Amino acid sequence: MKLLDCTLRDGGYYTNWDFDQELVDQYILAMNDLPVDYIEVGYRSKPMKNYLGEYFYCPLYLLRRIREKSTKKLTIILNEKDVRAEDVPGLLGPLDGLIDLIRIAVDPKNIGRAIQLAEAIKSAGFPVAFNVMYMSSWKDTPEFIEELVNMDGLATYFYMVDSYGGVYPKDVAETIALVRSKTHVPLGFHGHNNLELGLINTLTALEHGVEIVDATITGMGRGAGNLKTELLLTALSAQEKVSVNYNSLSKAVEPFAKMQKDYEWGTNLPYMVSGANSLPQKDVMSWMGKNRYGLDTIVNALHNQKNNISDN
Amino acid sequence: MKLLDCTLRDGGYYTNWDFDQELVDQYILAMNDLPVDYIEVGYRSKPMKNYLGEYFYCPLYLLRRIREKSTKKLTIILNEKDVRAEDVPGLLGPLDGLIDLIRIAVDPKNIGRAIQLAEAIKSAGFPVAFNVMYMSSWKDTPEFIEELVNMDGLATYFYMVDSYGGVYPKDVAETIALVRSKTHVPLGFHGHNNLELGLINTLTALEHGVEIVDATITGMGRGAGNLKTELLLTALSAQEKVSVNYNSLSKAVEPFAKMQKDYEWGTNLPYMVSGANSLPQKDVMSWMGKNRYGLDTIVNALHNQKNNISDN
Repeated sequence: MKLLDCTLRDGGYYTNWDFDQELVDQYILAMNDLPVDYIEVGYRSKPMKNYLGEYFYCPLYLLRRIREKSTKKLTIILNEKDVRAEDVPGLLGPLDGLIDLIRIAVDPKNIGRAIQLAEAIKSAGFPVAFNVMYMSSWKDTPEFIEELVNMDGLATYFYMVDSYGGVYPKDVAETIALVRSKTHVPLGFHGHNNLELGLINTLTALEHGVEIVDATITGMGRGAGNLKTELLLTALSAQEKVSVNYNSLSKAVEPFAKMQKDYEWGTNLPYMVSGANSLPQKDVMSWMGKNRYGLDTIVNALHNQKNNISDN
Repeated sequence: MKLLDCTLRDGGYYTNWDFDQELVDQYILAMNDLPVDYIEVGYRSKPMKNYLGEYFYCPLYLLRRIREKSTKKLTIILNEKDVRAEDVPGLLGPLDGLIDLIRIAVDPKNIGRAIQLAEAIKSAGFPVAFNVMYMSSWKDTPEFIEELVNMDGLATYFYMVDSYGGVYPKDVAETIALVRSKTHVPLGFHGHNNLELGLINTLTALEHGVEIVDATITGMGRGAGNLKTELLLTALSAQEKVSVNYNSLSKAVEPFAKMQKDYEWGTNLPYMVSGANSLPQKDVMSWMGKNRYGLDTIVNALHNQKNNISDN
């Protein structure tokens, strides 16, 4: 079992990938004392038009500072839709010796292109992991499942991502069996928490042989957010599967818990409705962020989306 | 399947059982439009020394006002430790025609005395339900399980209460089987949310034949709180097991979500640690409420408690 904490990467959806250096230092040092294997620092991206903070680009000075302080393996993630194989030398070449795993966030419809990108990353000397979205829809896309034979020998980990936060433990077990019918690649699971199923889905994944799982401190992450690292560690510690220094865990949680009062990540009625009905949380996050709409307005808008999707 | 919303009763742990009349009216009217069968209004109690608000006593004027506005069945709950069979005529006699079910909160070690109380309540003309605490410890107390034969013909519902918020779905299924080995009484489940397992435990209970389950709006309730009514309704609605008016559900949620920003109920690291290790949340709630202790101090105090419990 390996644990990956992606608080800075996924939490960046709330802060536009800006974080105070003091907060990050406290987080990194606390993580050094905790049974977490990988820290995901952020995205690595080509220049974008709109403003995005430093954890969206992960410049070298930032990675070097974290590399010096952290005793953990470090990862960054690429948005597959924005990066091509030919970008790899320029984007990743300088990261040699700083980063231990490159993850790519992939829409299953782009899996063919993602495989080319992964091959380029591997040629550049980095282990590579696929974080493939929309696991709840895979059973309806056999052409995607057929591609999974290409994971063997290429991917260090193949992650199933519950993008909508709507899967249940039995869906996790079924999807693992579906993926296992095509590939022996080590599996990962990245859950969202719209229906407060992050913990039970993740524990179910581990029971069914998944080797690596993601979490974030306080669940900080896009929309309803993720499985909380402190919840996973507390549950695994009570089962005597890991040993937790609760002073360090408290130190990791405290500054993020403080920020959460302002940014208010976590689930709520609109995110529950989007999760339960497999609707994207991007729109909900935008509506919630405007602070202009009542819950009823947002939930009605979601229901219109749901009906349109059903009608088409 | 029956649903019971006990927001006012369980939420009172945060407001000392005081609620604005306007808030309660909005809640009661919204509930009229929702697929909830019972509303629990509060405790009914003999005078206590310290100050407790009106939803801890449920005086007649309060119950009459709610009875006029609500189209639902109404319940109140008694703390078994504070009420004896001889108190029943004075305490419950006036509620004839106002209240549809009397629940009693019972420590399993007092089950014998609770049965006498339940008989008195039944003689006074009220259906009675047992809410029995500490379900995680029942498998170690066969003398309690033997008493369950007395439920048949006496109790309208026998509730299993996950007092510490530490049970998992497989524990729910096992406890149901244990109880079912002794009684045919209709079962209920009341979950807490320390480990964010309220929803999955409740759905598991329903799948295993439990007939009635509890929830509270926004999860408002002692310590880490309860399964959220809006989460349960959204999940059941997506499974097409209930039909939900989301405008009404939003109206029920909105005022409590506003209060939650001040009172901050819900799970956090100390409640996770108490749940995962079966420690009472009463102490954690008191320490959190003082706003004087860091998370690390509270978590260390919990660990000392845990070690003392293990040593004895």
